[in-house]
Amino acid sequence: MTGTGILFGVGVGPGAPDLVTLRAARLIGAAEVLAYPALAGAESLARGIVADLIPAGCREIAIEVPMTTDRAPAQTAYDAGAARIAAELGAGRNVVVLCEGDPVFYGSFMYLQARLSPRFAVEVVPGVTSLTACAARAGRPLAARNERVTVLPGPLPEDELRSRIAGAETVAVMKVGRHLPKIRAVIDGLGLTERAVYVERATMPGERVCPLSEAPAAAPYFSMILL
Amino acid sequence: MTGTGILFGVGVGPGAPDLVTLRAARLIGAAEVLAYPALAGAESLARGIVADLIPAGCREIAIEVPMTTDRAPAQTAYDAGAARIAAELGAGRNVVVLCEGDPVFYGSFMYLQARLSPRFAVEVVPGVTSLTACAARAGRPLAARNERVTVLPGPLPEDELRSRIAGAETVAVMKVGRHLPKIRAVIDGLGLTERAVYVERATMPGERVCPLSEAPAAAPYFSMILL
Repeated sequence: MTGTGILFGVGVGPGAPDLVTLRAARLIGAAEVLAYPALAGAESLARGIVADLIPAGCREIAIEVPMTTDRAPAQTAYDAGAARIAAELGAGRNVVVLCEGDPVFYGSFMYLQARLSPRFAVEVVPGVTSLTACAARAGRPLAARNERVTVLPGPLPEDELRSRIAGAETVAVMKVGRHLPKIRAVIDGLGLTERAVYVERATMPGERVCPLSEAPAAAPYFSMILL
Repeated sequence: MTGTGILFGVGVGPGAPDLVTLRAARLIGAAEVLAYPALAGAESLARGIVADLIPAGCREIAIEVPMTTDRAPAQTAYDAGAARIAAELGAGRNVVVLCEGDPVFYGSFMYLQARLSPRFAVEVVPGVTSLTACAARAGRPLAARNERVTVLPGPLPEDELRSRIAGAETVAVMKVGRHLPKIRAVIDGLGLTERAVYVERATMPGERVCPLSEAPAAAPYFSMILL
């Protein structure tokens, strides 16, 4: 053992276990220590995607993120998780952090990277994002030729969503969840509902793809609207 | 043999052979017929990424796309390629079309899908895009929290690039290539050069990541600017 371990931020893709990359599968299959975020009291979605690849005897660090829009408790959880990961890295062991989709695309890996990259080597392994997985399942190209693509998080204020959607070509609204009624009202107001597709749990069991007009009243966090 | 084959549009990721997904590797490894676009007179980049996975005896359809900005000759090439693929599908054989990155993200698969989906079943297998691969290699998150992401193709007119970049948060300019001087002038004019990273051939041999101010005078098609 020489020196410190490497922190790997590994994208595990949108949900289907076989949409993991060969590199991610190799790293996970050889991991001594895995870490992943998990909503407090719930299974980790990222861990569930790759459960069949995790080797016996692998140590696991679950970072329990409290379910709240208040940032402070989540940051405290990442502080604690980073400290546990740092102890492993400092002892010369690599740590593989599982990230839904891709680590740099709306992921929580950045919170760990910010805390640990000053002291440890970091490698990011990109993954398939829900962005293209949803478009694939919706049966439409996300971007063609010289089209612009705008990605908007659902929690944005209504006015901003309206002005950004109005001036855009292809739009993907991510993290729809409880913001669905607001987003729907904006899209309706712009007369774009007929062009909008709703995708929930793309590539996972329970997947749903339908016109926005037929979307359920309550959407999970992992849902997207394409238009 | 019953009925017709399935047309698979398979993303092979940004360039590194191990950033192919397990599903793509399985489909390619079992393929009877592969198809891929290739610039006339050049090796197919998509084929090169997965060369080691292609089974012996697999039939290959290279769609030679002429190198021109004029659309008509390219469309003629896709007509001819689609006809050859249709013959295989009609004979009950599946055809796996190799697509750099992801099939629905600025890919040419849409040209084949448009021609063949009225007659044949189509399945799209999403892949890792150059978008997140470049961000990973540049060592920065592409999107955090409630940030907006704007993807702009480099061939867009200068005025449009300027107005879109000015109003955006995170911007990725794709397909930089010969448009580099124009894009550079726009970013310079907006005073954003210091924030801009240039990424060429992300995850491939010959990869280059540097501040935009140190980018080469001539950029290949597979290059991106992040800011």
